[in-house]
Amino acid sequence: MSGMHQLPHADVVHLADIAPRRTIFTLWERHRHRQAHWFIECAAETMGVFFYVYFGVGAIAGFNIGGLTGQAINSLETVGFGFAFGIMLALVVCSATSGGHFNPAMTITMVIFKGFPPIKAARYIVAQILGAYLAALLVYAQYHQTIHTLQAELIAKGTFAAVNYTPQGLAGIFACYAPAGAHLGLAFLNEFVCDFMIGLVIWACIDPTNFLSPPAAAPWIISLTYAVCVWGFALNGISTNAARDLGTRFAVLTIWGSDASGGAYAAIAALTNIPATICGVLFYEFILLDSSRVITPIHVSHLNAHLSHQEHCQHGTKPVRHDEETGKTHQSSYDDDSKAQIETFERTSKNGAQIQTIERA
Amino acid sequence: MSGMHQLPHADVVHLADIAPRRTIFTLWERHRHRQAHWFIECAAETMGVFFYVYFGVGAIAGFNIGGLTGQAINSLETVGFGFAFGIMLALVVCSATSGGHFNPAMTITMVIFKGFPPIKAARYIVAQILGAYLAALLVYAQYHQTIHTLQAELIAKGTFAAVNYTPQGLAGIFACYAPAGAHLGLAFLNEFVCDFMIGLVIWACIDPTNFLSPPAAAPWIISLTYAVCVWGFALNGISTNAARDLGTRFAVLTIWGSDASGGAYAAIAALTNIPATICGVLFYEFILLDSSRVITPIHVSHLNAHLSHQEHCQHGTKPVRHDEETGKTHQSSYDDDSKAQIETFERTSKNGAQIQTIERA
Amino acid sequence: MSGMHQLPHADVVHLADIAPRRTIFTLWERHRHRQAHWFIECAAETMGVFFYVYFGVGAIAGFNIGGLTGQAINSLETVGFGFAFGIMLALVVCSATSGGHFNPAMTITMVIFKGFPPIKAARYIVAQILGAYLAALLVYAQYHQTIHTLQAELIAKGTFAAVNYTPQGLAGIFACYAPAGAHLGLAFLNEFVCDFMIGLVIWACIDPTNFLSPPAAAPWIISLTYAVCVWGFALNGISTNAARDLGTRFAVLTIWGSDASGGAYAAIAALTNIPATICGVLFYEFILLDSSRVITPIHVSHLNAHLSHQEHCQHGTKPVRHDEETGKTHQSSYDDDSKAQIETFERTSKNGAQIQTIERA
Amino acid sequence: MSGMHQLPHADVVHLADIAPRRTIFTLWERHRHRQAHWFIECAAETMGVFFYVYFGVGAIAGFNIGGLTGQAINSLETVGFGFAFGIMLALVVCSATSGGHFNPAMTITMVIFKGFPPIKAARYIVAQILGAYLAALLVYAQYHQTIHTLQAELIAKGTFAAVNYTPQGLAGIFACYAPAGAHLGLAFLNEFVCDFMIGLVIWACIDPTNFLSPPAAAPWIISLTYAVCVWGFALNGISTNAARDLGTRFAVLTIWGSDASGGAYAAIAALTNIPATICGVLFYEFILLDSSRVITPIHVSHLNAHLSHQEHCQHGTKPVRHDEETGKTHQSSYDDDSKAQIETFERTSKNGAQIQTIERA
Repeated sequence: MSGMHQLPHADVVHLADIAPRRTIFTLWERHRHRQAHWFIECAAETMGVFFYVYFGVGAIAGFNIGGLTGQAINSLETVGFGFAFGIMLALVVCSATSGGHFNPAMTITMVIFKGFPPIKAARYIVAQILGAYLAALLVYAQYHQTIHTLQAELIAKGTFAAVNYTPQGLAGIFACYAPAGAHLGLAFLNEFVCDFMIGLVIWACIDPTNFLSPPAAAPWIISLTYAVCVWGFALNGISTNAARDLGTRFAVLTIWGSDASGGAYAAIAALTNIPATICGVLFYEFILLDSSRVITPIHVSHLNAHLSHQEHCQHGTKPVRHDEETGKTHQSSYDDDSKAQIETFERTSKNGAQIQTIERA
Repeated sequence: MSGMHQLPHADVVHLADIAPRRTIFTLWERHRHRQAHWFIECAAETMGVFFYVYFGVGAIAGFNIGGLTGQAINSLETVGFGFAFGIMLALVVCSATSGGHFNPAMTITMVIFKGFPPIKAARYIVAQILGAYLAALLVYAQYHQTIHTLQAELIAKGTFAAVNYTPQGLAGIFACYAPAGAHLGLAFLNEFVCDFMIGLVIWACIDPTNFLSPPAAAPWIISLTYAVCVWGFALNGISTNAARDLGTRFAVLTIWGSDASGGAYAAIAALTNIPATICGVLFYEFILLDSSRVITPIHVSHLNAHLSHQEHCQHGTKPVRHDEETGKTHQSSYDDDSKAQIETFERTSKNGAQIQTIERA
Repeated sequence: MSGMHQLPHADVVHLADIAPRRTIFTLWERHRHRQAHWFIECAAETMGVFFYVYFGVGAIAGFNIGGLTGQAINSLETVGFGFAFGIMLALVVCSATSGGHFNPAMTITMVIFKGFPPIKAARYIVAQILGAYLAALLVYAQYHQTIHTLQAELIAKGTFAAVNYTPQGLAGIFACYAPAGAHLGLAFLNEFVCDFMIGLVIWACIDPTNFLSPPAAAPWIISLTYAVCVWGFALNGISTNAARDLGTRFAVLTIWGSDASGGAYAAIAALTNIPATICGVLFYEFILLDSSRVITPIHVSHLNAHLSHQEHCQHGTKPVRHDEETGKTHQSSYDDDSKAQIETFERTSKNGAQIQTIERA
Repeated sequence: MSGMHQLPHADVVHLADIAPRRTIFTLWERHRHRQAHWFIECAAETMGVFFYVYFGVGAIAGFNIGGLTGQAINSLETVGFGFAFGIMLALVVCSATSGGHFNPAMTITMVIFKGFPPIKAARYIVAQILGAYLAALLVYAQYHQTIHTLQAELIAKGTFAAVNYTPQGLAGIFACYAPAGAHLGLAFLNEFVCDFMIGLVIWACIDPTNFLSPPAAAPWIISLTYAVCVWGFALNGISTNAARDLGTRFAVLTIWGSDASGGAYAAIAALTNIPATICGVLFYEFILLDSSRVITPIHVSHLNAHLSHQEHCQHGTKPVRHDEETGKTHQSSYDDDSKAQIETFERTSKNGAQIQTIERA
């Protein structure tokens, strides 16, 4: 066993060990693990994108309503913070369950770089778009009165058709539109660079060697990247996320019909983030990623937790492991002769990365 | 002892061990633990809600006064941050003492889901409402001159009755009112979805398996959820918290009399958060909670600290524990033959969750 | 040795061990420890208050200049964040050196509650006021042109005397003035409650049992308390800190002469924070502090670091300690027979708290 | 070996051990380590300054465009946050690769204080200026339409020459200009004090004894220092960073020609930060740095990670180390007889600091 590396691990305690649940919940959890896990992961993805779009679009609602009524209700700063903290909440609440993609570009990137299964990716993307769609419809419902009143005023003034499907319009609360007269090539550039930066940041945050991005810091770092993109570049039109864009596009089509389609810009808003994210990730993979760096202590705990979680899901109880040095018997996630091995199973970690199985002695 | 799990623990040091206090304080603490603990917990709940409402309502004061005088003093963004950081301070300062509910909906949820004693819950809710009441009255006192001046101006202009009991009015600084002409069903929806999200976030933050929400991060995550709710949806009328609502309602009734009652909307503002929070918690319990996940290292320390605290309160000194493997003698919170057991006592953890006693060998 | 508790400690490594300095620096450090420590601590207090006042007053400069010129340059929100992050920087940069008081009320509280030496406290308070004085003068110098121009305009308009010594005036950039016509009793109440809350928060943050306030979080928690005080209550006149108040008062007296004195309000602004802070601390000591709670792991490291620092300053090298159980010899801060003892020396911890010597076996 | 101190270390796991990469990547990494490391470090510095300037200048774009068109798009607060979070992202994403200077003044300071090689420093500075240049050009491209339209309007109004090369102008979006009529001595003072504070904060954050600045907190602390400098003092003209200044200066010269040169102020904006940063660092070195303080646990992990990284880069695999006490064999970064030694190699740590080799037994 000399020459092999062991991922240091402490004894782990599962939530089931200290907080056992009523039988109804235990049976439901077993059913979830065995048959319905796909549903749970998709529900988490939907809820995550819902968090992000619900609070971001809510902030835009105040911003646009203020603009249309001559009041200063929210500012672009508030909109940036609204999207940012919505994303932070999505990651904190839902990423442990689904891997925290919340973004078709990230899911596609995981397929390309981490072997995420394509069929699962397709389900994830549908779930993500659904989350954005539901969020937009709900915000519309909550603001229904105000929107209805303002729409009547715009129609009375005769400016409805000119204003509504712009970033400042009522449909512009929900979906992404290009500023009036925008050059589509520059809109593409605006979108591409921002999404490149976001992809690069996300990949840096999930690097387990990054001492400046422990797991608990990643939601804040990633989310404020969206904020600075809004503050710096939303003026030129920006979507950053295909699910946020397509989901809200379907919502405005549902509410206002085909006039809300956004024209050719809609393709830029929906799709640019995919190649841009991949390019940002490639930059990290080629220039910044360094396999000689060391996994930080908290990332070691985090990875161990995933391994143990996987085992517990599969086996219910943990197999007994004999520690050859001390003679102690522990229940652990490792088979008993595996002390000196690295066993990493094909699994979904926090951001959907998969760590391939490597040799087992 | 095979098959049983041990919550790993390090030797603990109590504050009493390194910072002994003058006898007057020690006697007072013993009296607190034995006879007056109910009072201390309620005082902490009152102070916590006071933090939250005092700073939130203070920010609204500037916002409304600015609106009534044509100046831009605070913005909706400042109001969101004011409530958020008030909640963060409530959690940091008071949650170790009372469990950090600060919210009747959370207390009721604890009764339903964690076996929190109902009589104690009733006391908590009274204490919470009292904290909001005192905060509102104090803010009114501190702003008394300005409010009095503005009230005279509104009366002189003849707009007092129309404006005062709206979100932009002077009473609207303190209590929650529906926007003029608001549809009560939509107000209910607006309130319900936001409070659902808040309940979901809180439950995710107290999940001890959540690496993205270590104890020190929870106040920030939970508090910024309130901020995004304000930025996104306060325009439609939002209270988020029955104590914040009822306490301030009693305050405006005290100050302005029955005109300040808020009509039918008052019931929505006061009560919607209770079923909404329960639904958010149910979503987490059914979809996201996974007993196979592993308790994070910092949560292990946190839970151990609670166990040791409980023991020390009851016994004064810690019983001796023999470590069978190494032969060392430690003073610890465990009985000496309990090394391989999980002992979790019926206790109040950070957010009032109770972990039930399970088998002891 | 049974019945005694040991503060668990790991082997410590001093900065001198891994990053030895050039001889000139080493000699200077030895001189500092032996003869000039009072000077270093006072310099740290001065620099800390300088950070706080320099950035806070700088933000007010933009706010007031905007108000006087009809532009929206900064908002009250920016002023709150400016003071907050100034305080955060003061704590991060300087508190390890001086204990991080930056506030005469906190120093006086330390004298009363933690046995801080009174002569040292007097030096601290002088240093704190000096830091605020220098900061105000420097901000005045940097803004000299703009202030001079605006002053000429105000004089030409004939409004200088009425406006300059108010919160919106040029002197109001630096020093605290009551709003026009303010009732002094209400100004006292406004100041008292805010400073009570600040004192309570600080005391909660330095409680080593507080899992929600690890050392690295304290600067953020404490600093944002000042922000919410500004957003909520600066409209009614607020200083929060005797050094910030007196130092800037001396600065405006230096610049504008006795017209800048602030009248009777100056006494409220300068002194109210002292009894208010003490009351906030008393609330914590009586209601929330619980000696049965457990020191958090990171606070254990922090306290150990202080003990080792103290030893290293006094002895240069660390005495040898024999570990009776394993037979290993370590250099540590403990005498060799002290394994089972708690030794806490009279020392200055992060916030100037002193932990009294307790029994040594 | 008595009398020598050991930097405590746990077994380390390298990223290569748990996430082996495809051969193409592994060969590319080996080539990077051996021949192209200079290129990778410079690319990281360029990308870091790009993050900082791209998002900061993007925020200014909205601010200036709003000012020129009579709208309130961004505020000075948003500009401060934009620069701050851009710097935070630069540090999180790139500092592990290059040491995270992103600032010629910091690189020069590292040459003076930490023995950073001067030739490498020259390459770093060129890379930093390039990052700012590219960022400014890209923001210009993304905003090209709006800028072009506004420029035409200014020319039509005849105000172009007077406005464009001021902080509020179109060129003022990118480069630093003195306010109209600014006294250059006061501009120098304004710049010097702010940059002194920034240098002092950075040096405090990289002090491995600072419990209030663990590695993960440093990006936030350092970045918000820039924010408070913007909020407090950008009105008087401020650049804070020679690369940000020179890079954007070259960009505006490229776009608008020699009219954009900024006159004598350009020298102040470009160069003041260098002596100011050195003075801030000297203040820390003489007054606040204390070699008797203890390295915090997380900084110990961080330093160990650097040592192991260095070894792994050089050797590929880790040499075997025999632990004399327990007889265990570990692969580690230490030679087998080095347990009791401190070995610190001449290396580049997080902020480019170099720790000198000290004696090896």
